[in-house]
Amino acid sequence: MKSVSIISDLEDFYVVQIFGKIFERCKKHINTFNVRVKNFSIIEACFKIYSLSGLKDVVFVCVVDPGVGTKRKIKIIKTKKNFFIGPDNGIFSLIDENLIEKIIEVSNEQFSPSPTFHGRDIFAVIAGKILNGHKIESFGKEVKEIKRVDLKNKILYIDEFGDIITAINNKKIMAKFGEILKVKIMCKDKKVKIIESKFVRTYADEKEKFVIYKGSSGFLEIAKFKDNAAKILNVKIGDGIKILD
Amino acid sequence: MKSVSIISDLEDFYVVQIFGKIFERCKKHINTFNVRVKNFSIIEACFKIYSLSGLKDVVFVCVVDPGVGTKRKIKIIKTKKNFFIGPDNGIFSLIDENLIEKIIEVSNEQFSPSPTFHGRDIFAVIAGKILNGHKIESFGKEVKEIKRVDLKNKILYIDEFGDIITAINNKKIMAKFGEILKVKIMCKDKKVKIIESKFVRTYADEKEKFVIYKGSSGFLEIAKFKDNAAKILNVKIGDGIKILD
Amino acid sequence: MKSVSIISDLEDFYVVQIFGKIFERCKKHINTFNVRVKNFSIIEACFKIYSLSGLKDVVFVCVVDPGVGTKRKIKIIKTKKNFFIGPDNGIFSLIDENLIEKIIEVSNEQFSPSPTFHGRDIFAVIAGKILNGHKIESFGKEVKEIKRVDLKNKILYIDEFGDIITAINNKKIMAKFGEILKVKIMCKDKKVKIIESKFVRTYADEKEKFVIYKGSSGFLEIAKFKDNAAKILNVKIGDGIKILD
Repeated sequence: MKSVSIISDLEDFYVVQIFGKIFERCKKHINTFNVRVKNFSIIEACFKIYSLSGLKDVVFVCVVDPGVGTKRKIKIIKTKKNFFIGPDNGIFSLIDENLIEKIIEVSNEQFSPSPTFHGRDIFAVIAGKILNGHKIESFGKEVKEIKRVDLKNKILYIDEFGDIITAINNKKIMAKFGEILKVKIMCKDKKVKIIESKFVRTYADEKEKFVIYKGSSGFLEIAKFKDNAAKILNVKIGDGIKILD
Repeated sequence: MKSVSIISDLEDFYVVQIFGKIFERCKKHINTFNVRVKNFSIIEACFKIYSLSGLKDVVFVCVVDPGVGTKRKIKIIKTKKNFFIGPDNGIFSLIDENLIEKIIEVSNEQFSPSPTFHGRDIFAVIAGKILNGHKIESFGKEVKEIKRVDLKNKILYIDEFGDIITAINNKKIMAKFGEILKVKIMCKDKKVKIIESKFVRTYADEKEKFVIYKGSSGFLEIAKFKDNAAKILNVKIGDGIKILD
Repeated sequence: MKSVSIISDLEDFYVVQIFGKIFERCKKHINTFNVRVKNFSIIEACFKIYSLSGLKDVVFVCVVDPGVGTKRKIKIIKTKKNFFIGPDNGIFSLIDENLIEKIIEVSNEQFSPSPTFHGRDIFAVIAGKILNGHKIESFGKEVKEIKRVDLKNKILYIDEFGDIITAINNKKIMAKFGEILKVKIMCKDKKVKIIESKFVRTYADEKEKFVIYKGSSGFLEIAKFKDNAAKILNVKIGDGIKILD
C-alpha cells in the first residue's frame, strides 16, 4: 500500500484528524488523497468509491455514515487492488464483485471510539495498521456479503459542471456519432421528461444541443457544452434515466 | 516533526505558495495538511487549532490575520506535542496552558516580507526552518503570554452539517441518556431562545428532536439528525449558550 | 522535480484520478499540491499558473480545457524552474518568456485517451514520466510558440476576500503612501466606473476607503478592509482597469 484516500462527507479539519490518527500508526511515506462527498449522500459515495477503485495500492477510508454509533456494521473489503474501510450502509454497492477477495466484519471490542466519530476512532486505526502490514483478519470475522443498494438506470452523480453521470454502462450504447437519441428521465417527484441528445465523442463536438457520450468513468453521461445540463433539466442524483429505442 | 499543517482563511493557491516556501527550506519528507477557516473568523480559528492540537509532531502555520502588516505580534508556541506559528490576535486562545513549553515573540528583522502576505514571507520561512531542526529561540525573544479571547459559554463552531459545537466541556454534563435538557441561547442581536434537547449518545439515537451529546472534540454539541440545527435555530458562531438547571 | 501540482477546474475525485495515474508511474516521494480554478476560466488559470510559477522543481499539470478531445494542441513547457503540461488554449499566457527553455507540442499517438479526460489519460502520464526523469523531447516536436491571450489592463482575479487583483505591475505605481488615486474600471457590459482609492502599504492601514497596494503576486490590488471590494463595485474577472493620472 502506498496511498491512503479519505472519501467522506466531512470537513477538512475532521479529515485531518483522521489522517493524523493514521500517521500516528504508520511510519513510512504514504501519499494522501482527500475526496469530498455531499452530506449523507450514499449514492454519490457509491459513485466516487467506484471511480477511484481502479487505483492501485490504496487504502480507502470511507466515511459517509449518518448511522455512526448505531448498530450498522463496519466492513473491511480487500480487493485485488486495494482496501476499503467503512460503514456497510450501501456505499460499497458499486465495487466489482469479481475483484473482491475478502470481506471482514469489524468487531468493535478492540476500539474505544467516541460514538460520533468512528472515522477517526475506528477506521483510521484500522487503516494505519493495514498500511503497516497488519492482517485484516485480526479485526473481526470473515463474511460473504456487503450491502448493495439498487442503482440500475439511476443518475449516479452530477458533477460541478452540471454533467449528468448515469449508471448506464458505456457499452450499452450502439449509436453512431451524430445520431439523436431520446432519453427519458424519471424524477423522484414523479415528473417524466423526454429529451433529445446527440451522441458525440466529446462535449465540444456539439455546441447547442444536449449531448450524450461515453464518460471517462465507464458510464454514459449527458451534458451541454459550457453549460449546466443538470440545472436546465432540473434533475437530481438518484433520478431514473433510460435511453429509449 | 513529521507533518506541517496550514490552518488559514486563504484560498488554495495562496496555501500552495506557503507550502512551496516551506519545501524550499526543508529537504526531508513531510506530510501536509490543509484546513480552511472562514474569512477573518478568529473564533473558528481558535476551535480548529484546538481540535488539531492533539496531533503529534506537527508544525502548524496559522494564518487568520486581518491585521497583517500592522503592529500585531507574531508568536511561535512550542508545546509538548508540536509547534504553532501565527499572529497573536487571539487565534491561540484555546491552546492548553499546561501543554505550553515556550513562547517566542518574533522580531521581524531577519525577514523582508511583502506587507500583505506574512503567511508566505515570514511564517513559512520559520516553519521550514523548524522542520529542519532550527531552534525557535533564534527568531526572537521569549515571552510569557499569548493573547486569549474569552470564549466561555460561546458557540465555537457550526460545522457543515449544521451541528452546533459549544465551548462547554463534555465533563460538565451530568444527565442520563434520554433526559430532556433546556438550553438557553443568547444571540448577538440580543434575542434569547430556550430549546429542549434530548441528551443522547449519538445523533441517530433520536430522529425528531434536537439532541445534545458529548462531541468528538471534547465539547458538548447540539444537532438534529439529518437536518441543520444551526439553520433551524438561526444561531451563529460566537453566540452565547448555556444549559439551564 | 520534487513536487507535482494540479491546477484545474476539476472536482477532487477527478483530481485524485490524475494523481493516481501519476503515482502509478512514479516510485519516489513527491509532494502534491492541488489548486482549483473556476469552471472554464482561462484568465483565472493564467493568474494562478503565473502565481505559482516561481516555485522550484514542480511539475504543473494544468487542466482548464473546455476543448478537450478537439484539435486544440497540448504543450509541455520547460522553464528554468519547472515544467508545465496542458492545453494550449491561452492558460500559459502569463508565463515569463525569458524563463522558457523549451516548448514541446505533444503528438497524441503514444496515448489512448478517453476523449473527455486528457488530464488523466495524457497529461498525468507525461507528468509521471517527467518525474521519473524522462526527456520531454520524446513526447512530440519542439515548437517556438505558446498561445497568449491579451491580459493588459485587465482584472486578473478576484479572491475569496473580494480583493481585486489587476494585471498592472507593482512597479507601475509611483504614488506615496496616503495619496488618493483615481481608478477607472471598464466593465464588460460597457459600464465605466471611476473610484477613489488610497495607496497604502497594507489593508489595515485604512479602514473606511477603498485601498490600492502592491500585491503579494507582483500586481496592484484593490481592496476594502474586512469587506468585499469586488462585490461593492460589481466587477468581474476580465473587466478593464486603469489608474488615471
